[in-house]
This record gives sequence, structure tokens and C-alpha cells, in this order.
Amino acid sequence: MDETSETRTVTVIGAGTIGLGWVALFLGAGLRVRVVSRRGDVGDQVAEALAMFAPHLPGGAQDPAELATRLEIEPDLAAAVRGAHVVQENTEEDLEAKRELFVKLETVAEPDALLLSSTSTLPPDELGASMREPGRVVVGHPFNPPHVVPLVEVVAGTRTPAETVDAVVAFYRSVGKAPVVLRKPIARFVANRLQSALLQESIHLVREGVVTVAELDEVVTRSIGLRWATVGPFLAFHLGGGQGGLRHWLTNLGRGLEASWRDLGTPELDAETVELVLSQAETAVAGRTYAELVAERDAKQTAILAVLEDSKAQ
Amino acid sequence: MDETSETRTVTVIGAGTIGLGWVALFLGAGLRVRVVSRRGDVGDQVAEALAMFAPHLPGGAQDPAELATRLEIEPDLAAAVRGAHVVQENTEEDLEAKRELFVKLETVAEPDALLLSSTSTLPPDELGASMREPGRVVVGHPFNPPHVVPLVEVVAGTRTPAETVDAVVAFYRSVGKAPVVLRKPIARFVANRLQSALLQESIHLVREGVVTVAELDEVVTRSIGLRWATVGPFLAFHLGGGQGGLRHWLTNLGRGLEASWRDLGTPELDAETVELVLSQAETAVAGRTYAELVAERDAKQTAILAVLEDSKAQ
Repeated sequence: MDETSETRTVTVIGAGTIGLGWVALFLGAGLRVRVVSRRGDVGDQVAEALAMFAPHLPGGAQDPAELATRLEIEPDLAAAVRGAHVVQENTEEDLEAKRELFVKLETVAEPDALLLSSTSTLPPDELGASMREPGRVVVGHPFNPPHVVPLVEVVAGTRTPAETVDAVVAFYRSVGKAPVVLRKPIARFVANRLQSALLQESIHLVREGVVTVAELDEVVTRSIGLRWATVGPFLAFHLGGGQGGLRHWLTNLGRGLEASWRDLGTPELDAETVELVLSQAETAVAGRTYAELVAERDAKQTAILAVLEDSKAQ
Repeated sequence: MDETSETRTVTVIGAGTIGLGWVALFLGAGLRVRVVSRRGDVGDQVAEALAMFAPHLPGGAQDPAELATRLEIEPDLAAAVRGAHVVQENTEEDLEAKRELFVKLETVAEPDALLLSSTSTLPPDELGASMREPGRVVVGHPFNPPHVVPLVEVVAGTRTPAETVDAVVAFYRSVGKAPVVLRKPIARFVANRLQSALLQESIHLVREGVVTVAELDEVVTRSIGLRWATVGPFLAFHLGGGQGGLRHWLTNLGRGLEASWRDLGTPELDAETVELVLSQAETAVAGRTYAELVAERDAKQTAILAVLEDSKAQ
């Protein structure tokens, strides 16, 4: 690697689904990427991922072979982070293992390198608890798959300097992501909590026999999904309230809203419910392969993102 | 009206936000529309709505003046439904008033006219309880605004013949909607229940100070909204489970999912919470008018729908 190059280097630790998505995204954004993984077949895994993800990168399709020219596989952690500007960690959700990793990273990484974790559950203070500078770890939690979905939830530790948070936000923006900084940590962060709330009621409705799995999916894609791709739930309600906006809505319908919350389902995920959901879900996708379904999803998502980008530019 | 014409006639009762959206949609689909309303200014209201909605109709922008050539305002109910193939009712959510209206409709409407209600809360058996043929009323609940969002939740009464349900579905499909027939009635139907579940957790997160209203909206539009515009929650989890699909996901992470449900917020909509949400929401839209925000939302939604239509056709 040319240390004097203008091209920044990112080290990606862990080559599971999330790690591979980051690799494709960072390469697509023109960065150099070093991958650290214990997997013996990591080279093959990355090559396969680049072939699958390169057609759906945010700025448009790219050539996997061109992307691979800026890629290195480096099994040694110290060598992998030398000269790197950013480290994005994607190992298993094992607090002890991650703590040890960040202690080690603190000694081998460049002093000003950003140390980021893709964890979806662990707060940064826990991750950095054994470090000399615990505030250096910042959570950068992507929504899967990272190369397609723009959101990154940024969660700083209580001792993280404000300028570090700014640098993390600037870095994610520079590779085309939409970082949102949480004001305090909360279990499972924001998007996954919202997803969980919707899934709970979805499973309730299937369990009650109101709709099947396929019908529930159809309801969502043809109404609230479409809506929330363009305006978030609060702005949606603001506009749904007519000229009076959210004020009219909350003050007139607020009591009904509270009543509707108390009426939501609280299903149990017992064996019968799991089997009901699975059998309906498997019927719904019968005859289509995993790769076909993923390609269709990613093609639609990148097309929608391009449309939204266009409308923003106008 | 020319009774021998091939052009079907729809009578729209009530000219509030929902009624006006239906009028625009039905006219845009090439139908004749008769509007019944107690509002003295109904002509002006319809004209204003057509001017606002015509640029964002599903098939592309249309000329409001051309649409208006197939429009009649008819204050007399019996005259308004004479010869009409479909009646779409959009009056206030007042059970007694709606019951009386459907009793009257049964005597004045054509014997084979579809009698549809846009109610968002009342089950069809209640609406038709005083009719000779209570099964004639079918709920066709649109997601607001009806001229933009494809979903219509179709809810039949226990005595509704299967062929009536088929005719309702065929009618909504013929005007470009995406009807989903619920297998049994449930309070507030499906989409609004899901919306309510997500809003409950959204308000919890704002109340806890994890994110502001604007940040919550940003999280949703940049992750789960985008996702659910392309694949519903079940298919999203099926694909998120990797090659093992939903089976892998539910059997491995099911316990965590149940725990996440128990950890969701149960906020109260007390005065303090309402003021917090409203002040943040008003800050978020400061400087932009209601009409600008609605135009932006509808332009994005129709653009996304066009993209999804294209990708389906491929």
C-alpha cells in the first residue's frame, strides 16, 4: 500500500453478511479496503459477495474486478490496520471477545483512526470498558444490507469527544450513507425496535387469522411501506391531519390512539405460531430462489433510492 | 347521463379528504362520478381537489378540466345513485347515521350496485344491521390519500356472498388499486393497527430522548420505510435470515424477538408528551407550507410507484 496516497484505507474486521456488505460499499465509494477474517475461504467469500453486490451499489452498477484492485485480504490484525483511517468491526455479538479486540486495536491502530463497531445490541461504553480511551469506540450500526440501505445508527460512548462523533458522521456521509446520531444508547437502538414493534403486531394478525403472511406483506408494501419510504411516521401524521397538522390530529384523535395501543396484540412465539408463520412464508416464496428474491429486492431498493435522490435534486 | 354508455358511474357520498381523493382517482380512471355532499361549497371543494390531485394520479398527470367533464354534483341521494354501478360512502364515523344511509341506499340504488364504505373503524355487519340484505355492504377502506396509496382493505360481512367480494376486488383492481381481502374483521383493520404499533414505539423513543421527531422520521425513511416499500416485513426477515431464510431466523433468534417485544415502550399520551412531540414536529417543518409538503410527498410516492411498476413489468 502506498502510504502517501490520497485514497483512504478502511479495515473491515469480520466477513459475515454485514462485513461483506461494508466491503462492497467501501470499495464502491473508491476506498482501499483490507479484510481481516478467520475464515479460510475469505477470499472466495469476498469475490462472491462483490459479484453479487456490485450491480446494486448506490451510485450505480460497478465492475467487481475493478473493485477488487483496491482490496487486500490480511489475516494479521496489526498489519491490517497499519495506516488505516477507519476500522469497521463486524465480529459475533460476544461482548468479551469484542472488548479484547478493541483493547488490541487501541495499541495497533493509528492514533487517529476511527474505531467503529457494527454491533446491533452492545452499547459503546461496554465495548470500550477495558480500553485506555474508552471513548474511542463508536457504534456505527448499519441496517442490513449495508451496501443498499442508507441508514447508519451512530451511538457514541459517554466519554466520546464531540469531534470524534463529527468525524464518524462525516466519514459515513462521504461513502453515501445516512448517519443518524442517537442522543443516548438504548437496547437494540431505534430501527430494530420499530421493526420489532411492527413484527409483533404482524404475527398477531397472522395468528388471529385476519391475513396470511403474504397478505400482510402486501398490505405493508402497498400502504405504510410506500408511505414511510417518502415521509417518516411523524411527518405522515402531520400531513394526514389536514391543514391543522399533527396538532389537530393528536389533540382530536389522541385518545383513540392510546386506546388503539392498548388493543395491540401480544402474541407468544410458541411452536404452533412459528410453524404457522413458516409454512405460510414458505408457500409465499415457493418456486423462487433466495438469490432471485435478493436481487429483486435490491434492484427495487436502488431504483427507489435513485428516484428519491432525483426528487431531492430538483 | 346516458344510461346506455359503456362508461361506468360511481357515486361518491361525502366530500371530505377521503371522498375527494376517491373522486380524483375514479375520474382519473375514466369513470363518470356523481358527488353527494351536504357542503354548500362542494363544487369549489371538488375543483380545488382536482387541481391539487390531478398532477399525481397513478397513471401520470391529468388535466383537471378534462376530468371535470365526467363529474356531476347531485345533492339528491336517489338521483345521485340512479344508474350508478358503485357507491363509495365516506361520511363521518357515526354508526347510526351510516346505518340509516345504507337502509336508504338499499331502496334507491340499482339492485346490483356495489355498496362500499370507506369506514376505518366500523365492521360491515354493523353498517348493514338494519338492511333487508345486510351482506350488501362491503368495507373498502383506503389508505389516505386514496388517489396515491394503492392499498384498499376489503372487509366483507358474514352474510356477503363470495361473488360480491369478487366483484368488489375486480372493481378496485380496474381503477388501479391493490385490494387485500381481510379474512375476518378486526378493530381498525390491518394497516392502521401496524401503523399504531410503530407510532407507539416512535413516541416512546422521542419521549425517552433517544431521538427527536425529525431524527425518528429520518431513521424510518432511510431504513425500514425503504425496505417495506419493496418487501413486506415477513419477506424482509426471510431474506435477512440468509440462505436459511425465516426458518433459521425464527428458530435461532425467536427467543430474542420475544424478549424485544417485552421491552417495547408503553408511553402515555399525557399533555407533556403531546407538547414535546408537537414542538419538535413543528420545528421540523418550519418554513414549509402544508401544500408544499403534500406535493413533495405525493410526487415522491408516485415516482416510487412508477419505478415499482417498471420493475414488475421486467
